[in-house]
Amino acid sequence: MTRQQLVEQIKKKQSYLCVGLDTDITKIPKHLLSEPDPVFAFNKAIIDATKDLCVAYKINTAFYEAQGLKGWEAMDKTVRYIGDEPFKIADAKRGDIGNTSDQYAKAFFETLPFDALTVTPYMGEDSIKPFLKYPGKWAIVLGLTSNKGSNDFQKLALRENERLNEMWNMTEALASTGPFNLRLYEKVLMDVAGWGSPENLMFVIGATQPDEFTRIRELLPHHYFLVPGVGAQGGILKEISQKTMNKDCGILVNSSRAIIYASAKEDFAEKAREAATTVQKEMAAYLK
Amino acid sequence: MTRQQLVEQIKKKQSYLCVGLDTDITKIPKHLLSEPDPVFAFNKAIIDATKDLCVAYKINTAFYEAQGLKGWEAMDKTVRYIGDEPFKIADAKRGDIGNTSDQYAKAFFETLPFDALTVTPYMGEDSIKPFLKYPGKWAIVLGLTSNKGSNDFQKLALRENERLNEMWNMTEALASTGPFNLRLYEKVLMDVAGWGSPENLMFVIGATQPDEFTRIRELLPHHYFLVPGVGAQGGILKEISQKTMNKDCGILVNSSRAIIYASAKEDFAEKAREAATTVQKEMAAYLK
Repeated sequence: MTRQQLVEQIKKKQSYLCVGLDTDITKIPKHLLSEPDPVFAFNKAIIDATKDLCVAYKINTAFYEAQGLKGWEAMDKTVRYIGDEPFKIADAKRGDIGNTSDQYAKAFFETLPFDALTVTPYMGEDSIKPFLKYPGKWAIVLGLTSNKGSNDFQKLALRENERLNEMWNMTEALASTGPFNLRLYEKVLMDVAGWGSPENLMFVIGATQPDEFTRIRELLPHHYFLVPGVGAQGGILKEISQKTMNKDCGILVNSSRAIIYASAKEDFAEKAREAATTVQKEMAAYLK
Repeated sequence: MTRQQLVEQIKKKQSYLCVGLDTDITKIPKHLLSEPDPVFAFNKAIIDATKDLCVAYKINTAFYEAQGLKGWEAMDKTVRYIGDEPFKIADAKRGDIGNTSDQYAKAFFETLPFDALTVTPYMGEDSIKPFLKYPGKWAIVLGLTSNKGSNDFQKLALRENERLNEMWNMTEALASTGPFNLRLYEKVLMDVAGWGSPENLMFVIGATQPDEFTRIRELLPHHYFLVPGVGAQGGILKEISQKTMNKDCGILVNSSRAIIYASAKEDFAEKAREAATTVQKEMAAYLK
């Protein structure tokens, strides 16, 4: 999916909601357990109930891998069932040396029909570039994540050096604020942005990091951000939207548990639709 | 597998070789393609030919995921075929927020019978701890990797601060050399080491990083290192062994392509055995 197609879908649906299919077989309604593939049956109902309200689905691969072969099969069926219109994200946090990242790209962009894959940046350029070679496919690289552990390494201050400040001065919008010590995640954002373009790269920015939003948007004015952590993790949609939206919207806000587990009973799909509708309406207001 | 069991296996086999099963269906001998599961048939023959010469197998999950469901099935069969004695590593570079890492731990330590999983550290403590809760299971965390991209972020100098130097002074072996600016990967090694023990944590240290070996072993005298990058990537076994072995051996050296693709013909297993034997004999000499 191209950026233009994504922007058009957001305008049409008046939504930048991404529904996270973190489908845990121990949390789905009990009546589904008699289905031949309970996880797929659950996902199918959630997708049917939310497809007109969201622009993207994010499949958290861990929940499927935990079920082994059956789980991988449920993931395969789910991503194909979503169809062409929504943006399909594999939240798999992959990344390895070049020849191995090639294989991950093949897994998610050729063997499976995902539009995007989340990627971890620790191994650097050759671990990320293989995901940028596919027209219409996206790497969504971890920038600043939503969890407590984001404080451990992502926010470490880097030693000031000439190259960093040179990069800094090249960022026109910020030239007036002068040099500073970049933190790791900021260098990740800036370096990785240089390896691709806003047409094939997004970044994960956790919704629980509101103090950083404004600065991150200044650093990267054009890129889309995938923002997880709204709902169960405590991020607030209004603040995220005010601080990070750009003229093309520029954000996909993910909600997983608050939507898919809105009810644990037979009315789960209906309640998921209600939860998604509430979010979509709020988003429509911010899009104006 | 406990550390003691691993050490005993190394002594018995006079080897610290890990054979990497990066099995690429486009590179295996053509006569296997008529088998019902060519990847498993290949792996089975490689395992039979090398099991007495190596102490570990490392399955690079990307090559299996690239084949979709069939690939996941081949991985499942392969790890079960290896059996109890060798140390079974899923080279999957996983890591996510706590509740998702829980699912990855379940995938590789419960649903599949791996002993260890490679883990990426970018998301910090809560992304790694779930892998440390299983007795006899290991997280192998990326420290300094073998690829060119390891220069991009892993070697960035961190800003000097009191806490870092306090940690430094606590490392007795190095107290004499005084304070310094840690680089990111060094902080990763030291912080992550504090979240577990040498009984459930190893680190990935690329064989292509010989200038760093001595220092890394000083930082972490007791931990095992998984060292990829010997062979196709250019690392040298002798130098790695001299600089990083400790009294319990302390390293697992991985070789993938140089062993499993030693021949592309019908004699592939025989040639793999020859290649593994050469490495094992060299290792036996260093173990003395």
